Amino acid sequence: MKIAILGGTGPQGQGLALRFSRAGIDVALGSREAGRAEDIATGLNQKLEGAKGHIEGFDNLSAVEASDEMVILAVPYSAHESTLNSIRDILTDKVLIDIVVPLKDGDPKAVDMPKEGSATEAAQALLGDHIPVVGALHNVSATTLNSLNKAINCDVLVCGNDLPAKNKVIELITQLGVQAYNVGPAVNARCVEAITPMLIRLNISKKVPFSHAGIKIWAPDS
Amino acid sequence: MKIAILGGTGPQGQGLALRFSRAGIDVALGSREAGRAEDIATGLNQKLEGAKGHIEGFDNLSAVEASDEMVILAVPYSAHESTLNSIRDILTDKVLIDIVVPLKDGDPKAVDMPKEGSATEAAQALLGDHIPVVGALHNVSATTLNSLNKAINCDVLVCGNDLPAKNKVIELITQLGVQAYNVGPAVNARCVEAITPMLIRLNISKKVPFSHAGIKIWAPDS
Repeated sequence: MKIAILGGTGPQGQGLALRFSRAGIDVALGSREAGRAEDIATGLNQKLEGAKGHIEGFDNLSAVEASDEMVILAVPYSAHESTLNSIRDILTDKVLIDIVVPLKDGDPKAVDMPKEGSATEAAQALLGDHIPVVGALHNVSATTLNSLNKAINCDVLVCGNDLPAKNKVIELITQLGVQAYNVGPAVNARCVEAITPMLIRLNISKKVPFSHAGIKIWAPDS
Repeated sequence: MKIAILGGTGPQGQGLALRFSRAGIDVALGSREAGRAEDIATGLNQKLEGAKGHIEGFDNLSAVEASDEMVILAVPYSAHESTLNSIRDILTDKVLIDIVVPLKDGDPKAVDMPKEGSATEAAQALLGDHIPVVGALHNVSATTLNSLNKAINCDVLVCGNDLPAKNKVIELITQLGVQAYNVGPAVNARCVEAITPMLIRLNISKKVPFSHAGIKIWAPDS
């Protein structure tokens, strides 16, 4: 299995590449500049000696083409629309996993949602219904992903309008050793994406006994 | 200390009354019908023999008047606006704790937010800035609250525009033995309230090993 991670040279993308590679999944790491992706891929592979999965660097379009089905969009929100526009014609038969959070410019403690309501909904509207968009992995911090000596240890909320696509994404994410939950249609991305700035707020406050918080679904009988 | 719980005869209100009473806090239990509130208060006190707090039944307006500062609004969303209108003139110097979730009519797996964005924001707009509104306790199930043999065991996200009021509410809720977190201004209620239907969705699905889920802020180092 080979997945693409676009914007894969950012901290979130690198952390995901490391985690998936260690789980035995090949990664086509995409960047605007192929050379930068190649350099970073080399470094990541060195960190993971003995991993069953291999990380290879590409420009974003070539990364999509190198993947067999799953394409993770991990660019900053400012590049969300332009990246989607650049790859929409080559996404046929793929699933777009959108992990982008529309953080407010200059204030990571707030969202500034697009007119569609959320990044996931904006992506689905831009790509059209024939390309399933699944929102996921918004609430896992890059630091957590990159701390390979620790389990991720928080849950992943997965939303989107296409149930088979969501189930495939849940199966993929579960390979990272985390619980992934189907929390409903794409409209729920308005909530899921907005959890991230609340976590960022907690992390930068002095009121919590931890940093890099995520969330967990929890119950008295769990 | 005596708090009011409006709509206190519903399952959420009863569970909160039991929990606060057991924590040594007196409760003015409000209902549209004083007689019904009185009957239910009697039953709740019997369940809690030896509790330091006492529960007394009132009509909603009298419950507000009997409270010293904190007024919890626990009515169904359909009664949210009318209840607020009926008490707005007697809320001076009180804090309104809004726990109402605008669940979609006929579908508890979705929200149907008011034009203000969330119930908390609608309440704040209706009451005016001189009455602080704090959103809290949306994500704790009534079953959990009423299961007195179990700890609540999930976290409470608290939001609102008035920091001193939020801190008072956090102090109050902490007495139930839960972690309560300030997650930002009232606008974040759009997210916090919308978590509830996602939890309801998980609870009614067959895909999770539990019922009555809540959420927890969680981190690798927690």
